[in-house]
Amino acid sequence: LLETKTPDLAHRNIACRITGVASRRLGWIADPAGVDFARLEPSSQKSVREWLAAAQADVLFEATSLDPHTGQPAIDYLRAALEMGAHAITANKGPVVHAYRELQALAAETGKRFLFESTVMDGVPIFSMFRENLPGLELRGFHGILNSTTNVILGGMEAGLSFEDSLKRAQEFGVAETDASNDIDGWDAAVKVAALVTVLMDSPIPLREIRREGIRALTGDAVRAARLAGKPYKLVCRAQRTASGIKASVAPEQVPLSDPMAWIEGTSSIVYFETDLFPGLALTEVNPGPEATAYGMLADFVRAVTDQKS
Amino acid sequence: LLETKTPDLAHRNIACRITGVASRRLGWIADPAGVDFARLEPSSQKSVREWLAAAQADVLFEATSLDPHTGQPAIDYLRAALEMGAHAITANKGPVVHAYRELQALAAETGKRFLFESTVMDGVPIFSMFRENLPGLELRGFHGILNSTTNVILGGMEAGLSFEDSLKRAQEFGVAETDASNDIDGWDAAVKVAALVTVLMDSPIPLREIRREGIRALTGDAVRAARLAGKPYKLVCRAQRTASGIKASVAPEQVPLSDPMAWIEGTSSIVYFETDLFPGLALTEVNPGPEATAYGMLADFVRAVTDQKS
Repeated sequence: LLETKTPDLAHRNIACRITGVASRRLGWIADPAGVDFARLEPSSQKSVREWLAAAQADVLFEATSLDPHTGQPAIDYLRAALEMGAHAITANKGPVVHAYRELQALAAETGKRFLFESTVMDGVPIFSMFRENLPGLELRGFHGILNSTTNVILGGMEAGLSFEDSLKRAQEFGVAETDASNDIDGWDAAVKVAALVTVLMDSPIPLREIRREGIRALTGDAVRAARLAGKPYKLVCRAQRTASGIKASVAPEQVPLSDPMAWIEGTSSIVYFETDLFPGLALTEVNPGPEATAYGMLADFVRAVTDQKS
Repeated sequence: LLETKTPDLAHRNIACRITGVASRRLGWIADPAGVDFARLEPSSQKSVREWLAAAQADVLFEATSLDPHTGQPAIDYLRAALEMGAHAITANKGPVVHAYRELQALAAETGKRFLFESTVMDGVPIFSMFRENLPGLELRGFHGILNSTTNVILGGMEAGLSFEDSLKRAQEFGVAETDASNDIDGWDAAVKVAALVTVLMDSPIPLREIRREGIRALTGDAVRAARLAGKPYKLVCRAQRTASGIKASVAPEQVPLSDPMAWIEGTSSIVYFETDLFPGLALTEVNPGPEATAYGMLADFVRAVTDQKS
């Protein structure tokens, strides 16, 4: 995406080169002159800080997988980037839930940005819309479908498969991970709810305060009967500000067809915001591919390097 | 809204007072010390320029009604504001269609802003989302329901009324104007399509190039039969970039229930964007009241006075 969008970046006076790549498989790779993708060879660095230094990084794109309980190692990586003078951009929602205020404060201190648009609904600009384009609007609550793996599995069950076969098919299609328990048991969705509550309702919420029920207990028969009755099962996320604090949950619900959630299929997702001035403001993302997540990181990159606000 | 949101504005270091009001009924009223709303008395000004000068205006909120064919008198008012050093904020889409490039250029020249978030889907941040939060994204087309008067009339017809009685009821509820022909004949929707194409696809389009068909020819029987058959009538807006230019239309269509447009009721609206990186990105506004339009102007005001980019 950095390559295909080069003309647009140039138009914004942004030039970039990739001076480092790191992954479990590749190890640490750094070359301040620009990584040669035809010949990827691990270099001698032994830690993220050594690697960031060797790469002379101005921006870190952090895309490790989620640990819902700790947000690590992503938090350490992002902290390292900010402390070493690089913008910290992540697609991993763990750090938003477990270290939002710390990383925001650190970014403000170093004059860099901590940005995470891709963490919920891929690159759909939820966080930036509320941060930049809805001044003074009060968010009272939201609900939606935010985990695509369970939505794909439920769809397979409606089409006749058992839970296990539908999971297996989702894994074959690359939609579900080998260990899909973070999705199936509602952890991924709960972390997204926590991220939205933390940032948009300015109210950090521990994961244990989110009522969480996955889709493991649903049978194919129950899912098909629900769809036939015109009230399909969906894994629904909810959060609401109440007099006694924010109530949040992730659980399967039977949704009537008059609710747009009932029509969200496959990897599509929806979030419906209730605000003081808009009774309902919904964002729907239809059939995104992996480039939608990459796009959120690209948009964060443009934000970080063109806007010096911290 | 300026009053109820005073604490939030103060938090942003924004203070304001209303130094002028003008309407058909009230005439020109100006007092640089702040208008006394308990005793509104017309003052001696005879033109928008005299009035802006007397009010010492820094910002003009322009909310005249639409002339789809000329965009006047709104264009003259906005031009006057910009030339006299005030930000120009409008809820009238005529100027966006008939004078977008001129007013943008004038704003750039004077270092002020020409903003119009409320012109399409009330204050839902469509224009600011594309301008600020979706860098480098290519908009290929869009479709949606953007005129609430016709949507309310069609809903009344589905519930058993004739076209005439449903129109009358919408007028009684204050949803439709006394002369509702701009809505019924598709002019309002066509001007919204033209505004979106002009700004978001960077391609000014004359109204005559938008195929336009209103709902006047639909009978209550046809509308009810369509709903019973599960393909209700909606006044659908469309625009698409093609090899031979942008094709745009406003026309009644029978929409299947699997399309979110089929479920848009009353004053709700939806717009579905097709982009190079998101196959579908939709915004839905559910049951807005008049404060949703006011909010778009408030958000433009915050944008204008906190961001000095032109």
